[in-house]
Amino acid sequence: MTEFDAVWLNANLATMQTELGPYGAIENGALAVKDGRIAWLGPQSALPVFDTSCAAVYDAGGQWLLPGLIDCHTHLIYGGSRANEFELRLHGASYQAIAKAGGGIRSTVQATRQATEQQLFELGQRRLDTLLAQGVTEVEIKSGYGLDLATERKMLRVARALDKQHPIRIHTTFLGAHALPPEFADSDAYMDYLCQSMLPELHHQGLIDAVDVFCEGIGFSVAQSRRLFETARALGLPVKAHAEQLSNLGGSALVAEFGGLSADHVEYLDEAGVQAMAQAGTVAVLLPGAYYFLKETQQPPIALLRQYQVPMAVATDLNPGTSPFCNLPLMLNMACTLFGLTPEEALLGVTRHAAKALALFDVGTLAVGSRANFACYAMEQPAELVYQQGVDPLEQLVIAGQPIQL
Amino acid sequence: MTEFDAVWLNANLATMQTELGPYGAIENGALAVKDGRIAWLGPQSALPVFDTSCAAVYDAGGQWLLPGLIDCHTHLIYGGSRANEFELRLHGASYQAIAKAGGGIRSTVQATRQATEQQLFELGQRRLDTLLAQGVTEVEIKSGYGLDLATERKMLRVARALDKQHPIRIHTTFLGAHALPPEFADSDAYMDYLCQSMLPELHHQGLIDAVDVFCEGIGFSVAQSRRLFETARALGLPVKAHAEQLSNLGGSALVAEFGGLSADHVEYLDEAGVQAMAQAGTVAVLLPGAYYFLKETQQPPIALLRQYQVPMAVATDLNPGTSPFCNLPLMLNMACTLFGLTPEEALLGVTRHAAKALALFDVGTLAVGSRANFACYAMEQPAELVYQQGVDPLEQLVIAGQPIQL
Ligand SMILES: [Zn+2]
Ligand SMILES: [Zn+2]
Repeated sequence: MTEFDAVWLNANLATMQTELGPYGAIENGALAVKDGRIAWLGPQSALPVFDTSCAAVYDAGGQWLLPGLIDCHTHLIYGGSRANEFELRLHGASYQAIAKAGGGIRSTVQATRQATEQQLFELGQRRLDTLLAQGVTEVEIKSGYGLDLATERKMLRVARALDKQHPIRIHTTFLGAHALPPEFADSDAYMDYLCQSMLPELHHQGLIDAVDVFCEGIGFSVAQSRRLFETARALGLPVKAHAEQLSNLGGSALVAEFGGLSADHVEYLDEAGVQAMAQAGTVAVLLPGAYYFLKETQQPPIALLRQYQVPMAVATDLNPGTSPFCNLPLMLNMACTLFGLTPEEALLGVTRHAAKALALFDVGTLAVGSRANFACYAMEQPAELVYQQGVDPLEQLVIAGQPIQL
Repeated sequence: MTEFDAVWLNANLATMQTELGPYGAIENGALAVKDGRIAWLGPQSALPVFDTSCAAVYDAGGQWLLPGLIDCHTHLIYGGSRANEFELRLHGASYQAIAKAGGGIRSTVQATRQATEQQLFELGQRRLDTLLAQGVTEVEIKSGYGLDLATERKMLRVARALDKQHPIRIHTTFLGAHALPPEFADSDAYMDYLCQSMLPELHHQGLIDAVDVFCEGIGFSVAQSRRLFETARALGLPVKAHAEQLSNLGGSALVAEFGGLSADHVEYLDEAGVQAMAQAGTVAVLLPGAYYFLKETQQPPIALLRQYQVPMAVATDLNPGTSPFCNLPLMLNMACTLFGLTPEEALLGVTRHAAKALALFDVGTLAVGSRANFACYAMEQPAELVYQQGVDPLEQLVIAGQPIQL
């Protein structure tokens, strides 16, 4: 007789194996877990006879099971708040005036440098708890509010500690190339420092899973980004970029050239860039929260991304300056309402395609052999999670086969 | 010695008496409650000596106390979901095609007619629980998904039952004039029926606190709305309207002419309408959720509303068709981000000005004599509630002086 550790009966499965049909749906399904992985799934009528004496059996009551959600682009660890700056801006202060008054990213860098590891841990924990309650099981966290060795290390250490102590699995990204720190007048000199010293050292300490850069007129040039990517490649680290957010510099094509994970934002991405990403298998990570919060009007080239079958992910970009939204379902709604994604595309963007953006291949879909990470939502159809906001539909969250106490 | 039932120490009070300064703030304050009302508030250093043997004493730990939030425009009681329609629309279906397929408001009317009182009660309860957890203590609920006597009565009875059994206080609005029901081919004939029969009968049953109309090209004309308002006036009921949402018909001026409570949406409101509202003391209720969800581009005339000192409220418009957002803090953010309100204006919009829109004068500010309804938020400044979304800042909610179990 087949042995399972746990079985969910009477479930609708949104496997997100969309080759099988919309949402890869299996209605009236069942799902079985063994050793933290999905051991069987399919129509309940086909469920093999199993030994009920050693399996926990759950009745999903007709709820929808989705893969645990994945937030593949966050700046979740930071000190301070920028509510004050938000308020000043709405009272008519210019960005320049706010920067002069010590606002902008520099204020977050200052607050993050001053915070202790314990303080950052607690702030991060609270934000992760919020995401967990939405059904999120994997989160990427970037450094980039230190811009000096000690603070970048502190941020990454906090991310690793959160990975150990929080049910959500954390994937770290080094974003030393987020902005020019006050200690440097010259961005070439800072890039030298990053490539020759900070990145190798932090990698040596085992703190980095991937390398990111803010490739933009107000950030780092394509040439500088290339140097960073070459360093990353030499260290065996995958790359990604904040690219084509405010202008079309070609950062996305650069990521593609390096076989990188993702180009993120991509509002100004052109057809050549889309083609390059398609060929490289690079994911386009859409960040509608920043688009909304900054009142941008240039939308990412969704039609081209569809045409060339570039996988689209959707993420919170959670950060205090441009996307203070610790709410992944809200981003699903914004991806549809503001960018015109279908609910299925949006949900692929926080499951299967978000997994691809993090080079994870055993999460993001419900499939035999995958980690048994899934969220049970009380809703009539998967689109409900995208459409309505506010009433919490999460009924149960399972990580590695274990129901999580929410 | 002064006797209080409960005292909150070490609190920052956002009294929303903005004559006193931004947010009417009293930092390092204290607040005392007696018989469910605020008996004293001010700087803690001035707190009178009180009998500690009969008062519960709470340490607010430097948190911000705001008046309980007020959602003054909702369609919170409804059956069914329109997620399917949302999905069809994002797959390119036209509004006409959706209406032909049985979608649109008619599908909600059908689902609401079919639902039992108990089912509607449970759906409403869940939505109210969600708002309560955000710090909301007063909610307006409209009928308008029955469009026949039995279902309009059912909706209003459910609202009254929720008022009795839920900690949130409910204010009912009759919106029989929401749309033309399938049983009527002629909107004049339906308005006759509303004025001569349905409205008087439901008012006679004590179910109605105010009367609303959808005054729009696709709804009811100004002349029809006037007949409804005359009926309401004869019955002693205050009026309001969904007005100037899609075009400038003059519904807001009509509300003002009747000394009405509020004109809601008002994207297309002109200067004459603003002046009329100012003279009548009619509140402009801004509904940024619907603006966002419908991808509207015409913003309400905020500068004119400020110039003529028309009080602006902010509400969810919670409804399945155009604002499926059971989230009042999100509306605060949208009011600022999409309409350019300041955080203080947005917070006035869900406290003091929302109270005025419901003709409530003992809630909406923290003041001696007011109902002791207040929310304690863990945040550094009131703007935080508007700015960040996701991490729940509510630490304690007090209604009529009693901490609520959340
Ligand atoms: Zn980012
Ligand atoms: Zn409405």
